[in-house]
Amino acid sequence: MAIALDAKGGDFGARVLIEGAVAAARQWGIETVLVGPEKEIAAHLDTLGARGLPISIQNATQVVEMGESPAEALRKKKDSSIRIAFDLVRAGTAEAVVSAGNSGATLATAMVTLGRLHSVRPAIAIMMPTLKRPVVLIDVGANVDCKPHHLLQFGIMGAIFSRQILSIHNPRVGLLSIGEEGYKGNVQVKKAYDLFSASRLNFLGNVEGRDVFKGDVDVIVCDGFIGNICLKLSEGLAESILSMLKTEISGSILGRLGYLLAQGPFRAFRKKVDYSEYGGAPLLGINGIVIISHGRSGPKAVKNALYAAHRLARQDLVNCLKTELDPGDALLQAVETT
Amino acid sequence: MAIALDAKGGDFGARVLIEGAVAAARQWGIETVLVGPEKEIAAHLDTLGARGLPISIQNATQVVEMGESPAEALRKKKDSSIRIAFDLVRAGTAEAVVSAGNSGATLATAMVTLGRLHSVRPAIAIMMPTLKRPVVLIDVGANVDCKPHHLLQFGIMGAIFSRQILSIHNPRVGLLSIGEEGYKGNVQVKKAYDLFSASRLNFLGNVEGRDVFKGDVDVIVCDGFIGNICLKLSEGLAESILSMLKTEISGSILGRLGYLLAQGPFRAFRKKVDYSEYGGAPLLGINGIVIISHGRSGPKAVKNALYAAHRLARQDLVNCLKTELDPGDALLQAVETT
Repeated sequence: MAIALDAKGGDFGARVLIEGAVAAARQWGIETVLVGPEKEIAAHLDTLGARGLPISIQNATQVVEMGESPAEALRKKKDSSIRIAFDLVRAGTAEAVVSAGNSGATLATAMVTLGRLHSVRPAIAIMMPTLKRPVVLIDVGANVDCKPHHLLQFGIMGAIFSRQILSIHNPRVGLLSIGEEGYKGNVQVKKAYDLFSASRLNFLGNVEGRDVFKGDVDVIVCDGFIGNICLKLSEGLAESILSMLKTEISGSILGRLGYLLAQGPFRAFRKKVDYSEYGGAPLLGINGIVIISHGRSGPKAVKNALYAAHRLARQDLVNCLKTELDPGDALLQAVETT
Repeated sequence: MAIALDAKGGDFGARVLIEGAVAAARQWGIETVLVGPEKEIAAHLDTLGARGLPISIQNATQVVEMGESPAEALRKKKDSSIRIAFDLVRAGTAEAVVSAGNSGATLATAMVTLGRLHSVRPAIAIMMPTLKRPVVLIDVGANVDCKPHHLLQFGIMGAIFSRQILSIHNPRVGLLSIGEEGYKGNVQVKKAYDLFSASRLNFLGNVEGRDVFKGDVDVIVCDGFIGNICLKLSEGLAESILSMLKTEISGSILGRLGYLLAQGPFRAFRKKVDYSEYGGAPLLGINGIVIISHGRSGPKAVKNALYAAHRLARQDLVNCLKTELDPGDALLQAVETT
């Protein structure tokens, strides 16, 4: 079955998104439905020489802009590319949605069209590079104000995702906090610590900021406000460090010469910290597969996001989540007490 | 007047702290009282050839360990090096405290012995390197659960500190959040946004994680839980990036050769991101000057922390804060409504 790609979402326009779909079709034979203005998309496909590839078009006449209110978009733009993409999944015509557009609107549309699994709070999980294997950080932006039991839901979903996508048998889960001891943290995290300790998760305890990139834990849980700040801070810092290093190096002749010689390793390093290698973040807890991509996604990031969606659909992620997020679980039900 | 240095706080023992005091005395003539076990300190001073330097010793027989409960330490260890250091300031014998020890105990002891300014919440401000001039991040750990008006207090204190230490006339202040628009963020930050907008601060609005290191804002405000995570995440990521880069470079002969040539720029870059250059973080909102240093401080970091304390005392930071944190300010009084 095809993956529905919101062909009008993202900071760089339709062209780079369509290039990503073409690359995914060529490299892995992944089938895509491009959702957006039919004529514009057809013209791009023509110039990209995409005839014969498993790529189709679904017309959508409206676009949700990046700064637009999700609630308003949902109410007023029934024919937006985001909305139509989700309608395809709901109708059983597509198996997943990939969008680099307005992430609030993507989240809201997912909740309304596909619904939630056992009424959990959907959360965005992202893989980040570390000194060892990648770590899953969850939530990085879907929920800005959370209760402790929501963090537990994120932990369970993150662990399932880690098992599925990184093939880690019994993922080690940690809570992002400001000290290793359980009594350290804010009220929310201290209460969550007790819930995690009582759960069936392989819970390692608190993880401090400085240990995030060490790779000694597989899933790190935090609320979406903190997670989003941490994610963007990491991106910004990595870019700034490389930029500062470049300024220093290009300021001396020996430095420039040294850089020329070390170009290969520099490129290998850049590849390791390049978010586009990771291709987007799944929105977990929705009754369907949704990948939210970076607004600044280029063709490679889109290609990898389509691959991730394809893989999660093959692995039946949604049913795994449905089974393990047991609605009878007392811990998850502890809504009012936490 | 002398600065009281807790000679038993920190991860590396008394020796490195005393070396820092000796270096500060030699370089700038800064006067220090080393607080801790008299004999041990005297022996170190002897082997460091510190006679004739403006360094004295104040005996303290107890030590607050790094993992110890601040409340308990405060109750049971009246003769700890931290406590005696603060008693010296209270008695007017020393003009500031520098401690690399248990920061919770330092905070608690400061509040009990010196008291707060107009009952504000004391907060830790730290300077972080950016692509342009350093930015002040406040709070990085004193308050894990904050109300919106506490964030405003941090903003006011951070702006005064920025003006004093970085000589910035009208510091630009931002709130750490997940989108530039005022309606983005969690409940706490959205309410704080309105308080900041109504204040006399040069408020730029929200700052996203990715903009922290760009240097386009002078003071970034957040609660101590998020600030501490961001600070440690940044330290950990910077170390990880350098370590990954080193692994790549040392994996190839050309890479190693290139590194040899580019060593100078590499060192200059390391100096830029080295926290020990910044020498510790002031605890603002206390009726006295307190510098909290990194537990892993070496002699250079201690030396720079003593310099920072010395400078803040010369600039009469406490009186500036006292004047500007006007107890009659309606915004700061809005305790119950936010």
